[in-house]
Amino acid sequence: MGSAALAEKTSAPTDLLTPEEFEAAIRAVGAERYHDKHIFHKMLHGGQMNKGQVQAWALNRYCYQDAVPRKDAALMARTDDRALRREWIHRIHDHDGLGEEEGGIERWLILTDGLGLDRAYVISKEGALPATRFAVEAYVRFVAEQPLVVAVASSLTELFAPKIHRERIAGMLENYSFVSDDVMAYFKRRLSQAPRDADFALDYIKTHAKTREEQDACVKAVQFKCNVLWAQLDALYLAYVQGMIPPGAFVPAA
Amino acid sequence: MGSAALAEKTSAPTDLLTPEEFEAAIRAVGAERYHDKHIFHKMLHGGQMNKGQVQAWALNRYCYQDAVPRKDAALMARTDDRALRREWIHRIHDHDGLGEEEGGIERWLILTDGLGLDRAYVISKEGALPATRFAVEAYVRFVAEQPLVVAVASSLTELFAPKIHRERIAGMLENYSFVSDDVMAYFKRRLSQAPRDADFALDYIKTHAKTREEQDACVKAVQFKCNVLWAQLDALYLAYVQGMIPPGAFVPAA
Repeated sequence: MGSAALAEKTSAPTDLLTPEEFEAAIRAVGAERYHDKHIFHKMLHGGQMNKGQVQAWALNRYCYQDAVPRKDAALMARTDDRALRREWIHRIHDHDGLGEEEGGIERWLILTDGLGLDRAYVISKEGALPATRFAVEAYVRFVAEQPLVVAVASSLTELFAPKIHRERIAGMLENYSFVSDDVMAYFKRRLSQAPRDADFALDYIKTHAKTREEQDACVKAVQFKCNVLWAQLDALYLAYVQGMIPPGAFVPAA
Repeated sequence: MGSAALAEKTSAPTDLLTPEEFEAAIRAVGAERYHDKHIFHKMLHGGQMNKGQVQAWALNRYCYQDAVPRKDAALMARTDDRALRREWIHRIHDHDGLGEEEGGIERWLILTDGLGLDRAYVISKEGALPATRFAVEAYVRFVAEQPLVVAVASSLTELFAPKIHRERIAGMLENYSFVSDDVMAYFKRRLSQAPRDADFALDYIKTHAKTREEQDACVKAVQFKCNVLWAQLDALYLAYVQGMIPPGAFVPAA
């Protein structure tokens, strides 16, 4: 059942959803719209891509990694709830690293290194598709501008992430000679990080979304976030599967 | 010659470009990257689209129209130069209308009316492609956040607009039975508005970009703006020519 249909069926539109109904509405968004359903991922995980296409994916997806700690800092900047900040800050640690730990962005660069991409070029984001950057920055703005509980809700695509990460690790290791175990370290680490974060965020919105309007806005936030992810794959598909690379973007070696 | 090549050839990278060189570098961006080169426009103007595809274009492009007065207000909000504000405000009048004059957004809605789209649905932007909204909002943010002279420069795709508007008026009237003279009023009006605005903005950046770095940033601003326009057509092409409509977006009647 679609999220809209569920919301309609379970209550009159102005009634507060029970925590169970609210969670079901959130999960229904993933079942409909999460980017594991996109043909680009099916091709990526199924071994149907050449090295240049995998490079393009990793290069563009770097922009998303690069944005994550900024969106988390944007969220922290908005709240005087110290307990929330103390919890949320480990997301920044996860991506930027802390002390000895290099963090997820470094692990992503190990992936792009392993694919033969120049690190400075990746970090510059100059070869990324404009559509990638527009989508990613829309996410940062969303978190900075929407009500706090809605901003928290937008992180909840993490509920759906472990499945895609498991598929990706297995599929990419099996199908691509140029992908080795150590370059997949990013995804292995996320298998444990994402569920912990998602559990916290889900509890948070169940407690803090106090009206039906806020609950609906949280469901829409997960839709929005799915759109951010989906639009990135649409752009990759048009540029690197259909071959319509826009002016100035990365062109794989022939 | 490309804009980068021109800049390299005409001066050492730290030398200020002459006003003529600066203008040539700006114009070279259009020659390379303006969206009149996109296959979607060639198809649109050449009569190769069905009514549903033209509807999708007009519905999505409404999001851009909707953003224009906001980006112009964002620019005005940043300057204490009253003369600049007095000049710039007519761009808002052009789009929002003033007094008896209904303005360009109303003319756009006459176009979407003429294509049989529900006005409330168009205005809600709910059926627009997420990629359209991400691109358009990136433009508003760019104008709000970049240095003022760079923000002004981003408007300079208007230098290249009259040609595409002339092609569009002729091509769409000739090729589509569902397009009539009065629904093309938006573009006819822009034939006189755009050159006036572009002349002002070009003079402004020639006077106010006082270092080579500022000049280069202005050239990059026009590239950025071309990316904003190009990304919108890429998204339309994938969704409505290739048929990969993302979840939740407008689906034309069969």
